[in-house]
Amino acid sequence: MHVLSTLIAGTALLQTAVAATVQAKNVIYIVPDGYGPASQNMARDLVSLVESGTTGSNPQIRELAVDDLAIGRVRTHSASSMITDSAASGTAFAAGHKSYNGAISVTPEGLPVGSILEAAKLGGLKTGLVSTTSISDATPAVYAAHVANRGSQPLIAEQELGYSHPLGRMVDLLLGGGRCNFSPNTTEGSCRSDDLDLLEYAEEQDFTVVTTRKEFNDLDKGLGRTGLPLLGSMRYEIDRRVVQDEPSLLEMSQTAINTLHRATRRGRKGFFLMIEAARIDHGGHDNDPANHAVETIMYNDVIAWVREWIDKHPDTILLSAADHETGGLTLNGYDPLPLRDVTHSRAFLQEMWDGERPEGSEAQREFLVSEILPLAGLAGISDDEVDGILNASSIGSGIAALLSSRAGVDWSTGGHTSVDVTLHGYAAGRKRRALQADLAGGWDNTEIPRYIEDVLGLDMDGVTRRLRKAAEEDGSWLGERSVKRDLGEHDHYH
Amino acid sequence: MHVLSTLIAGTALLQTAVAATVQAKNVIYIVPDGYGPASQNMARDLVSLVESGTTGSNPQIRELAVDDLAIGRVRTHSASSMITDSAASGTAFAAGHKSYNGAISVTPEGLPVGSILEAAKLGGLKTGLVSTTSISDATPAVYAAHVANRGSQPLIAEQELGYSHPLGRMVDLLLGGGRCNFSPNTTEGSCRSDDLDLLEYAEEQDFTVVTTRKEFNDLDKGLGRTGLPLLGSMRYEIDRRVVQDEPSLLEMSQTAINTLHRATRRGRKGFFLMIEAARIDHGGHDNDPANHAVETIMYNDVIAWVREWIDKHPDTILLSAADHETGGLTLNGYDPLPLRDVTHSRAFLQEMWDGERPEGSEAQREFLVSEILPLAGLAGISDDEVDGILNASSIGSGIAALLSSRAGVDWSTGGHTSVDVTLHGYAAGRKRRALQADLAGGWDNTEIPRYIEDVLGLDMDGVTRRLRKAAEEDGSWLGERSVKRDLGEHDHYH
Repeated sequence: MHVLSTLIAGTALLQTAVAATVQAKNVIYIVPDGYGPASQNMARDLVSLVESGTTGSNPQIRELAVDDLAIGRVRTHSASSMITDSAASGTAFAAGHKSYNGAISVTPEGLPVGSILEAAKLGGLKTGLVSTTSISDATPAVYAAHVANRGSQPLIAEQELGYSHPLGRMVDLLLGGGRCNFSPNTTEGSCRSDDLDLLEYAEEQDFTVVTTRKEFNDLDKGLGRTGLPLLGSMRYEIDRRVVQDEPSLLEMSQTAINTLHRATRRGRKGFFLMIEAARIDHGGHDNDPANHAVETIMYNDVIAWVREWIDKHPDTILLSAADHETGGLTLNGYDPLPLRDVTHSRAFLQEMWDGERPEGSEAQREFLVSEILPLAGLAGISDDEVDGILNASSIGSGIAALLSSRAGVDWSTGGHTSVDVTLHGYAAGRKRRALQADLAGGWDNTEIPRYIEDVLGLDMDGVTRRLRKAAEEDGSWLGERSVKRDLGEHDHYH
Repeated sequence: MHVLSTLIAGTALLQTAVAATVQAKNVIYIVPDGYGPASQNMARDLVSLVESGTTGSNPQIRELAVDDLAIGRVRTHSASSMITDSAASGTAFAAGHKSYNGAISVTPEGLPVGSILEAAKLGGLKTGLVSTTSISDATPAVYAAHVANRGSQPLIAEQELGYSHPLGRMVDLLLGGGRCNFSPNTTEGSCRSDDLDLLEYAEEQDFTVVTTRKEFNDLDKGLGRTGLPLLGSMRYEIDRRVVQDEPSLLEMSQTAINTLHRATRRGRKGFFLMIEAARIDHGGHDNDPANHAVETIMYNDVIAWVREWIDKHPDTILLSAADHETGGLTLNGYDPLPLRDVTHSRAFLQEMWDGERPEGSEAQREFLVSEILPLAGLAGISDDEVDGILNASSIGSGIAALLSSRAGVDWSTGGHTSVDVTLHGYAAGRKRRALQADLAGGWDNTEIPRYIEDVLGLDMDGVTRRLRKAAEEDGSWLGERSVKRDLGEHDHYH
């Protein structure tokens, strides 16, 4: 796509020269974090072969909801690396700017850039963010915060609630994990170094703060009365569906869409909602095949529901693209059957091993064989294979490697790769063909929000100007670029 | 895409329910054999960083000609395997039927199915096949031959020239390699077990048979006076461009398009041409990164020229999709710079080693270091790295592995994978948007020729009926399913 540049405050703002022929009241944007070209095959073949009872030597394959939505491809490199992280790619997809890995909607020079969500809010639309990971992690953060380093999650949480955002509260609805960044350091498990209680602040601002499954189920659906960081961290779908103690991404998406719709249906202005299927990425980092596939199936389930919702609300369009691929997944001999009976993630099984295993090597081996391996679909494997798992760097990595080998898939990295991601889109009726023609082809990730800006009739550069003005007066809210980041379980940082 | 089935002679024929809104006089269909999602990134980044002089820590990336043509994605599994070979996928893309790996436009039951090229010929259009591999290999074969086993290349060659095709000569122009299948067993290097001289037969049929670069350059461009199997086997582009003793794929494509255009421009009926960028696949099988990238760049060069040609001849559309991915390529840390100075393929360097190396281990090491490694961009590597190459299963594999490692790419297989391939398309002016809207989404590979059938107003099922009638009378021309195949250098068979 051809781009032309304009300059604001010394930094290039890219604008697409190709105008959108589609106009809409609402935009739903879904980010399958870490979803690469092979992820969809992996999920589709698993669903298809389990449903049809066929095998790889006579495959009967059916389409999943995402299959039919492919339109184009998107380049994802950042300003600092061929391989982006979620922050730099998120900054591009949300605010239309290339930046360095780690940047949350700031330029390489550290200047804030307005996001499509902020432009929506200032343009009179309602806004929402939904994620299966911490709501202050990079992918949601880039829509409603501006900090020099993605590791500054406490600062991001403050901005997301409007507490320290120079333009006030930009997000009407927040659903996801990561409560610890909202809780004061006087509470157990807090991730904050200060005693700021953002949950209390949120309630003062008329947010309904929800922290349990039951509260989620009982939610008053009126807007201004919803908005919640949920729980400490959210489970993988493959683990969650067993215990149902948290809402699924589909349930959160339904609540968010219904809520935003109720708040806007009578007016001319609609909503912008970003939904992140966050843990496809984590399953990829863990090279955990069934987990990666189940997260991808959930992404397809969300898309299926949203497609039907749009058919009933044709003033809405759906766009969806991953921020990058994770894991270097290839299907060099993929047979989904070994994944069929996996009921838990590698991370869950590792926690069982770390927390519950008995004393003594014989008892531990027996615990592995009788308690853990059946949950990985690995009942009845050979003694040599059990030895292989016990001798791996961790039993989780041993299980994931054996499962990958049995399922005929390969992972080339525990990090990200630089392959293009697929752009998906949906609209109802004749609008769909216009959307497809508008978006076919190859895009840079910075061009996508400019398209949405056009569809919704918004002004992102105006947001940027207001943010820059605030930063000139006092830039302390932008945080420090060199923040020591807590490298937790899934914080692969590249 | 939704499909509905009709039955002919006991086997399901799939027809798309979605009609083409685009009509055209000519269709150019380009197969980048073995080109996967990462291949385009690999080529684009190599071109971009070499041109811009930038590095991976500050990448300046420009689009190549194929980037902008992405429209949808295509599933490639065969009737016998999740991982297709070129024969089964070719049968799907050319004739609209799932079949077993190895099948050349026959069903799993061994019944012939008509191809889009045959339908074009019988519908009054001119037809052509161009390939950088043997013109009787699977990908071109499926358009003009029907045999139970792709290994029966002598039979395929006979059918391609009309010698034993039950409907006569279907192809007006053939450009590619594989002369040995056309030469009688009385000539050196023949691949035939009989003394049939198909080159002589071709001349009798008013083909101009061309077997040298000079003859190619001197070609009379009138149709009926062109058509040639070229040379024994064709070089890789990375090797060819050094010596220029064969035409490039771009030159062959230009000759084919100009020739077919000259023969049809005055009439109402146009042409169908299939061009195969065959050796992207071979570079993938060899896990040979620079070679794979250079073949992909040549594919982009061909597309660039065809796009410009279509702008001047807007009654033409271009479609392009790979038959499958080869090599399980991922870009887990891709830096193209180590590939910049590679001037020869792994296969070429292996031949040098096998044919020219001196006696004695010290002299051989010196030959490797001073004569071979500089051609692989590996001048000045460490003694340990030289040892690694000498101790590899072959020096070719050692060189390819070191280059891949230095360039930050990974290959998970020497065979194919089952990831979806990208569907590309181009048309001039307003027709382009219609084409994009028609073809966005997810397709099964069997649906693509049905779309072309609709665009050109052809009848593939009519061809199938005529072929079935001929097969009922005498099926010997279909060959045997169990043919011992000569497993040559690049004959990975899955």
